[in-house]
Amino acid sequence: MLKIGLFGFGCVGQGLYDIFQSTELDAEILKICVKHRNKKRSIPSEYFIYDKNEILNDPEINLVVELIDDAEEAYYIVSEALRMGKNVVTANKKMLAEHLEELVNLQQEFNTSLLYEASVCGSIPIIRNLAEYYDNELLYSVSGIFNGSSNYILSKVIQENMSYEDALGQAQEFGYAETDPTLDVGGFDPKYKLCIVTAQAYGMFIAPEAIFNYGIDALSPHDIQFAQEKGYKLKLIATVDRIHDEAMSLWVMPYFIPEGHYLYHVEQEYNGVIVEAAFSSKQVFLGKGAGGHPTGSAVLSDISALRYDYKYEYRKADLGKKLHYTRDLSMEIYLRYYKDEDLNLFRFDDISEKYQGKDFNYVIGTVKLEDLYEIREELRKRPVFLANTGRKVQARNLKSEQVLATASQ
Amino acid sequence: MLKIGLFGFGCVGQGLYDIFQSTELDAEILKICVKHRNKKRSIPSEYFIYDKNEILNDPEINLVVELIDDAEEAYYIVSEALRMGKNVVTANKKMLAEHLEELVNLQQEFNTSLLYEASVCGSIPIIRNLAEYYDNELLYSVSGIFNGSSNYILSKVIQENMSYEDALGQAQEFGYAETDPTLDVGGFDPKYKLCIVTAQAYGMFIAPEAIFNYGIDALSPHDIQFAQEKGYKLKLIATVDRIHDEAMSLWVMPYFIPEGHYLYHVEQEYNGVIVEAAFSSKQVFLGKGAGGHPTGSAVLSDISALRYDYKYEYRKADLGKKLHYTRDLSMEIYLRYYKDEDLNLFRFDDISEKYQGKDFNYVIGTVKLEDLYEIREELRKRPVFLANTGRKVQARNLKSEQVLATASQ
Repeated sequence: MLKIGLFGFGCVGQGLYDIFQSTELDAEILKICVKHRNKKRSIPSEYFIYDKNEILNDPEINLVVELIDDAEEAYYIVSEALRMGKNVVTANKKMLAEHLEELVNLQQEFNTSLLYEASVCGSIPIIRNLAEYYDNELLYSVSGIFNGSSNYILSKVIQENMSYEDALGQAQEFGYAETDPTLDVGGFDPKYKLCIVTAQAYGMFIAPEAIFNYGIDALSPHDIQFAQEKGYKLKLIATVDRIHDEAMSLWVMPYFIPEGHYLYHVEQEYNGVIVEAAFSSKQVFLGKGAGGHPTGSAVLSDISALRYDYKYEYRKADLGKKLHYTRDLSMEIYLRYYKDEDLNLFRFDDISEKYQGKDFNYVIGTVKLEDLYEIREELRKRPVFLANTGRKVQARNLKSEQVLATASQ
Repeated sequence: MLKIGLFGFGCVGQGLYDIFQSTELDAEILKICVKHRNKKRSIPSEYFIYDKNEILNDPEINLVVELIDDAEEAYYIVSEALRMGKNVVTANKKMLAEHLEELVNLQQEFNTSLLYEASVCGSIPIIRNLAEYYDNELLYSVSGIFNGSSNYILSKVIQENMSYEDALGQAQEFGYAETDPTLDVGGFDPKYKLCIVTAQAYGMFIAPEAIFNYGIDALSPHDIQFAQEKGYKLKLIATVDRIHDEAMSLWVMPYFIPEGHYLYHVEQEYNGVIVEAAFSSKQVFLGKGAGGHPTGSAVLSDISALRYDYKYEYRKADLGKKLHYTRDLSMEIYLRYYKDEDLNLFRFDDISEKYQGKDFNYVIGTVKLEDLYEIREELRKRPVFLANTGRKVQARNLKSEQVLATASQ
């Protein structure tokens, strides 16, 4: 019987609590620890405690469910709980992205289980699928819309002509957005999720600081107009891609998505993940990526799995040792700018289009991911917007591709 | 180390063999048993044997992979292999649908593992997800395009104006179709898959004979014209739906699918599965539903899981005991007919539209699933076509829905 100590009673904690009301699970929430004593909550105050040690030191509690906002505090709670031999379910992607390798070692050392399905793409079971189902697949890439809040904003701004501020306000109101919206719209939140996905997909722990992320906060009506004239939508995409047999790369940036693409119709708070592998080809997972109930349902699924002593086995750790992370990769981008001094920040290897107008200018050309990474801080200060055109400029070269080619002859 | 005896070297067997060439798995194919001695094959004849007992009685072989066409022979092979204490991976949906309960009992009795991801929707990991991830979710329904062959034909006929015969011929050529095409286009193959899905989703074993299935083989240009004028596509859909807290129902029939629906853009040999649950809302899985490599990749994933002694646990058997299967359900259908005597075969509770023209007639109205089931044999002989309009005529009534409604107030 699972005896749960719950941290946090925000959007997801409340969602989980609702779900508990309508399931007959061999699990019980013994204590709920929250930060603010005087916040108005949907259930009476006697349910709550305010000292984390009341849960961490309670020997009766064998499962800690961590659903708070503060990544540093979450790290303390999760690592302490694992050290106390308790199983842990967490949804904190920032904390996981920054400390996953260490936490996996703690899980191993103290023979506990750390599950985190709810940390990535809400209700979509992508972590479990990567951990279990694709453990021996020849994965080419995992990519998709990993952030419900910015997708919601893009839907409202592009499809419904809502102002950016109103759209952001609505996303916050519905509980889709992080407390600090820069995490969402700046592409940090999907980057954290990408780190977690990469650990399960390739057995590699890549530090978030080493990954280029660029968001949608500099989007202007010019960019929307450009996309619409070409029949594209704009989506914020996180990607981990196996470049060749020995190397993989990661990045987060807006993409122009053509009609017919699997992510073209993924709107509002929905997320979509595409898993591309040698023989199964493209697998697509769509579902609600944000909100209390969808995310709560992922937490519930982890809790449910702990009834059968489930844990992630990280079977691809050996594969991870053979691969290295690189930013030596070319991609084609659209860059909207106003002044040449901003254009000069970029080093284009090849320019295929150049537009100069009274209101704005743009170029479409090939850049190196490493170069974008180098200017990432400066980039955020400049009045420019960039998006990946989605056109491949660099072919993959994998052994399995040759086998496939031979087989289909 | 897994020592494999493989039965069958058709489209999927060959696909699996290709995959083995490019993975480094702790598994080895020791023997391949095939039926026809003189068939031309891509690898030399010394690899093949022709007597099934050479595999079944080989104590070194601990895993039987069954990929043959003949359901009766497959049943013999799979049940014998389980009795010999061997693990089994099979892709034979007809055999599974007809014998699953018995085979699950054999798995239990002889302490082996029977896996069958490849039997449903090719590369889409729907069985594993239902078995593991949704084991405690409050599932409302599982539905979707379960048959790659008929979806391929519909795409070609509707989108590309190809003739039905040419489209079927292409589907067979690419290895998407069963040897007997009636299984695909008559809606039998998706029905078998639906039985397997239902065992994992609701812990219930429903005999295929008890389920109404209707296919696409009577589709006429009039029906295509009707769909196109209304902006619909036609898709062959299999559904298991929880009607209320105590009952569920199953059926297979064509549906009119409006733009914006998740399955609208699922074309060619792709399959799509929608899992609807109380709190996670709709989850969508898309992927290749047919073909040697996609299906082979699902077989590989099962083989890979057996390295870790994986087996399906059927945790929802208890839920299954609380539910019963019913055909007492109303649905709205489109019925195209030519003569009144064919119309009179049907009992409409309510007719919302009636069209009479020189070339054809149709009615749109509400019928009982039980009534359709009663006339199922007669129906296939008449020059009519029916499709579900997709409009709900009967509300679900579940406890979890009330909790959700209360929570969102």
